[in-house]
Amino acid sequence: MPRVRDGFTPIADALAADLVALEGELADLVSGDQRKVASSARYLLASGGKRVRPVVCLLAARCFSAAEVPNEVLRLSVVGEAVHNATLLHDDVIDLGETRRARPAARLVYGNAASVLGGDLLLIEALRVVDAAGTPVLMSSILDVLRRMIDAESMQLENRGRADISFDDYFRVVDGKTASLFEWAVEAGGRTCGADEEQVEGLRAFGRDVGYAFQLLDDLLDLTRDPQAIGKSVLQDVGMGTLTWPVLQAIQHRPGLAARVEAAARGEHDDALTHDLLEAVDDSGAVALARQQIDDRTDAALAALEVVPPSDAREALASVARALAERAR
Amino acid sequence: MPRVRDGFTPIADALAADLVALEGELADLVSGDQRKVASSARYLLASGGKRVRPVVCLLAARCFSAAEVPNEVLRLSVVGEAVHNATLLHDDVIDLGETRRARPAARLVYGNAASVLGGDLLLIEALRVVDAAGTPVLMSSILDVLRRMIDAESMQLENRGRADISFDDYFRVVDGKTASLFEWAVEAGGRTCGADEEQVEGLRAFGRDVGYAFQLLDDLLDLTRDPQAIGKSVLQDVGMGTLTWPVLQAIQHRPGLAARVEAAARGEHDDALTHDLLEAVDDSGAVALARQQIDDRTDAALAALEVVPPSDAREALASVARALAERAR
Repeated sequence: MPRVRDGFTPIADALAADLVALEGELADLVSGDQRKVASSARYLLASGGKRVRPVVCLLAARCFSAAEVPNEVLRLSVVGEAVHNATLLHDDVIDLGETRRARPAARLVYGNAASVLGGDLLLIEALRVVDAAGTPVLMSSILDVLRRMIDAESMQLENRGRADISFDDYFRVVDGKTASLFEWAVEAGGRTCGADEEQVEGLRAFGRDVGYAFQLLDDLLDLTRDPQAIGKSVLQDVGMGTLTWPVLQAIQHRPGLAARVEAAARGEHDDALTHDLLEAVDDSGAVALARQQIDDRTDAALAALEVVPPSDAREALASVARALAERAR
Repeated sequence: MPRVRDGFTPIADALAADLVALEGELADLVSGDQRKVASSARYLLASGGKRVRPVVCLLAARCFSAAEVPNEVLRLSVVGEAVHNATLLHDDVIDLGETRRARPAARLVYGNAASVLGGDLLLIEALRVVDAAGTPVLMSSILDVLRRMIDAESMQLENRGRADISFDDYFRVVDGKTASLFEWAVEAGGRTCGADEEQVEGLRAFGRDVGYAFQLLDDLLDLTRDPQAIGKSVLQDVGMGTLTWPVLQAIQHRPGLAARVEAAARGEHDDALTHDLLEAVDDSGAVALARQQIDDRTDAALAALEVVPPSDAREALASVARALAERAR
């Protein structure tokens, strides 16, 4: 659960109440079925997660409906979280992941089959929620999001074993895997509560940029592990086609590093690799560049929000974006 | 490709033309992407299959629009095939299948990850086709179908290793895994070409019963293998929770057989098992009972079709149903 400071603003109290209701809606999505498939979905949903997609959806809604969030929006706010968790269930099967949110991956508890089908279940239930909301344009846009997500996964799969990924490819993956769903979540909240097309576009741009910043921050925080763990994690990332932004920066900075990283990922021994990688991170200024990227994305997100009328809810949305930039410092 | 006899009726010629166009639409669904994910989907789609779901969709459309099938329906007719193939891609990963349509399973050619994502891709592309058709009730009903399919898969997963499955459970799995998609395919064809609600209900009942007959026939044909292959296949089926109707009939007929089949599926040696199973199939009259079931389902399907106005297309739909009953003899 996201931490909401008590008495911070009335909007924080309202959001806190929304989030309690959200947990109920999420639980309802796969309740009353004790079989492995539903259990795997429930297990992952109950293991936490920051619920940041529902939060931005609910805040976008409150930008246009300050007093009360209609039930319909509360239900729509679970969609982003359900789709996100569906992709995690499939990802852990695809990547043979063992740990998720500090617990054993669902596939280790309930099996690969239950994880694949549990992902399918969450996805279909999410789409049924969108369908029931009766706003056809939201169905079209969530299907576009899902198409972009698969495209990103497809690109990652091609990138397995490679360390010479272009920044263009990196950002296309981030666009599909992270930004697209943030975009949809704020669109759903705003659109359902009366945002006009220009405001919807502003919200979508906000969501997209926040999504980028969110992923870049995640990549940056990866570098705060202990050096040995970083070395291991880079090789795993190469194996899965999911290199982080600062590491890509470092690899592009130092000729020869890409080939060494790829060889190490194939199992060749290279004692100096972690040291050389971290040195290249330093030399390339990757950390400062990542922080700059996050700042730029945050600024763009805040600018996009200007088409939305000022309100406590808009301020809270802006705080979500600013918090990412602050954590990156 | 289904065999259509030349000059059988004008409807056969029309259907033959529709099917050529269908192959183009199916290919378009995942064209122009040479990456593993799309390739796995393309590989499976190109490996044949009877295209029976598109056929009944197109014929249902021609019951109400004899002269010409609108492009929209042609596109909708691929949905049943795409969803069916999506489930096969996931099933082969879940069940570790090695052969599909007499070729190596897609997962062996492109990997498990590409198969899971290829299934996701086909599913989402199918839903995008439904969305683009602009008939919201078809979106709601395909999502219901997908929910029933996952429910059936979920039940199968629970039944793994069990040989004492009830007929009720068996039919619930058939309902979700096969009948539901046939139901939707004929609904989509009829509804888009002007069928009224009563006619849609008739078509859905027809599709459901044809789906049941189709699965029962498949189960029956399983018994025509050589006896050793049958023994092996029954143990595999128990492992996967997918026992066939005649074998279930035989197991329920002879006390003690369920426990022996389960033990053998766990690896215990039982030389007499295949012999005793086949004897129980004979003694229980399972083959005759399955034929009777198929006949009954065919009769029910034909009766449901009565609400549709007589036409060559209706006759052709009836022929599809009758052909199942004839193959069972």
